[in-house]
Amino acid sequence: MNILCSEPAADGFRMPAEFAAHEGCILIWPHRRDSWQNGAYAARKAFAELIGWISKSEKVTVCARFEDYDEARRLLPPQVRVVEMSSDDSWARDVAPTFVTNGSTIRGIDWGFNAWGGLVDGLYFPWDKDNKMARKLCDLLDKDCYNYRDFILEGGSIHTDGEGTLLTTEECLLGKGRNPHLNKIEIEQKLCAALGVEKIIWLRKGIYHDETNGHIDNICAFTAPGEVVLAWTDDENDPQYAISSECLDILTHSSDAKGRPIRVHKLLLPKPVCITEQECEGLDDMDGEPTRTAGERLAASYVNFYIANHHVIVPQFGDDNDAKALETLQPLFPTRTVIGIYARDILIGGGNIHCITQQIPLAI
Amino acid sequence: MNILCSEPAADGFRMPAEFAAHEGCILIWPHRRDSWQNGAYAARKAFAELIGWISKSEKVTVCARFEDYDEARRLLPPQVRVVEMSSDDSWARDVAPTFVTNGSTIRGIDWGFNAWGGLVDGLYFPWDKDNKMARKLCDLLDKDCYNYRDFILEGGSIHTDGEGTLLTTEECLLGKGRNPHLNKIEIEQKLCAALGVEKIIWLRKGIYHDETNGHIDNICAFTAPGEVVLAWTDDENDPQYAISSECLDILTHSSDAKGRPIRVHKLLLPKPVCITEQECEGLDDMDGEPTRTAGERLAASYVNFYIANHHVIVPQFGDDNDAKALETLQPLFPTRTVIGIYARDILIGGGNIHCITQQIPLAI
Repeated sequence: MNILCSEPAADGFRMPAEFAAHEGCILIWPHRRDSWQNGAYAARKAFAELIGWISKSEKVTVCARFEDYDEARRLLPPQVRVVEMSSDDSWARDVAPTFVTNGSTIRGIDWGFNAWGGLVDGLYFPWDKDNKMARKLCDLLDKDCYNYRDFILEGGSIHTDGEGTLLTTEECLLGKGRNPHLNKIEIEQKLCAALGVEKIIWLRKGIYHDETNGHIDNICAFTAPGEVVLAWTDDENDPQYAISSECLDILTHSSDAKGRPIRVHKLLLPKPVCITEQECEGLDDMDGEPTRTAGERLAASYVNFYIANHHVIVPQFGDDNDAKALETLQPLFPTRTVIGIYARDILIGGGNIHCITQQIPLAI
Repeated sequence: MNILCSEPAADGFRMPAEFAAHEGCILIWPHRRDSWQNGAYAARKAFAELIGWISKSEKVTVCARFEDYDEARRLLPPQVRVVEMSSDDSWARDVAPTFVTNGSTIRGIDWGFNAWGGLVDGLYFPWDKDNKMARKLCDLLDKDCYNYRDFILEGGSIHTDGEGTLLTTEECLLGKGRNPHLNKIEIEQKLCAALGVEKIIWLRKGIYHDETNGHIDNICAFTAPGEVVLAWTDDENDPQYAISSECLDILTHSSDAKGRPIRVHKLLLPKPVCITEQECEGLDDMDGEPTRTAGERLAASYVNFYIANHHVIVPQFGDDNDAKALETLQPLFPTRTVIGIYARDILIGGGNIHCITQQIPLAI
């Protein structure tokens, strides 16, 4: 692995869309007792079900801590590769590399990671194991690695159409916990140079009460060039209503890098999903304080799906809108089968299916 | 990775000779402060020099502990892959899988490992991290893995010609620290079933004062089918003289699996190499006892070379016989260049170049 200090766009590299073909997918086996209830047993079952689906059409690599390797190996199918790698938590989207391609080669970008806000409003301390993973994953996969450790970014805060357009949120990228020394124009320049995009569409905020500071990947995602799904509620009393309405307004008044208008498909949210007292009792404290409070609203959203080569895998919450989400998404992915998996046990950790995956694109 | 409980030979698999073509090579970055003097700095330089040579013609994977990854990455060339993997020490020959092939597929064998003798006369405790490495390396390399954990064996205790013959020593394989519940015939059956060999040539003992209980790879090695090099001294007062003479006697009265006589090339040993007081001062104690004593003879031998695709890399000790060893070996490897590297800093750890490498054969 070469560590590169040049800029991907200048080298002819760009980030492909998630709906482009994948070589594989990376996940991290869950273990934190203050993130995953009851020793992560239920979360591991949900991870394993998800991995089973992804591994039908992609080579999956799962990173497990030394002490978790045997159990991960036991619970995952043989076509999945399990490798030892230390981590602080299990959010591959945010700590694995963002991969870029020039059409024949794949390289990774090693962003700085500070647990979603560092000492300002980060979610745990320390985060050094997570921050080392992107480079080590490039090494493992034999791909050269761009050194962007001086720029804090999580993969969950960006979505691209692969044709020059990037979607993100101001709440996250302009927050004090990321790169407060850079202004919006400087951040745009950084993103364009790193990801090979020319146009950035800025939504204001992400999902209500999302502890990632409003990651884009929980509220809005490209399903094709010029088309997005947007998390939506018709309940005007829900604080989410104003957020989603503002997003809709921005999107319908935006065009993409190719000059196309953005077609928005509303993806109805489940009713508010709140953590129970029993679930909270299954979580360790962090530094003497509970990480969740009974009744706390979790950032449940169907937008947090993963687009595998043959399937789109969508979180389900036991809500009336579960089936509707699958019905909305299926026609948007005509070459893939849309699959729902029950994901409450992933949601309790603070994110969902998209957050725990990171695709490795095929070099085409 | 599938974990297989069948027998490789019955599945049509056999262990190729080291001089057959390699896909790659595995090493483990040194770290134990009671094995490698002065925090392993000098050993790491020697490892890096060796890895530089091997990586000219083979894909090298180096396993480093979490805390050592950055330094290993810094000191190794970019074409080498560094992966995180926990280990107790750094002897890839003995803890990495032994690979077998059926001509089109490579599989690994996961032998039991007990630190060269377990609670009888093992060299450290615990050894659980080492014992888990073979399976994890198969997983990393996407190769199916034979489960032989109930049979204690180190890769350094066997050499094959790839044509049905195995070389080993009674001192090691019949010792009380390995598989005392099995007799010699049962051990032969196990080796034949696992390695696809039909004929086992048993030498009595390995190099004098070799703490591995006389591993074959320090005293005798195949250079071609029907040809071996044997560590030799002409000094009749050296305790090694009787050992090597007995080996010579056995070898010259043996034939291989194909019925060929064994041609023996004597490889003159260096003068006895002993650890100095200053070197001992750079080693941590183990459980309150020193691991080496000043003046202690180390098991120096030129036989502990590694046969890479394009080079044969041979330990050197600053001895008059260093150059002679290279001269003896070069005509035995007409398609490879014989290279010497100064290896005293590896020897202090307890083994040498062959002990710290494990080849992955090409599937041909």
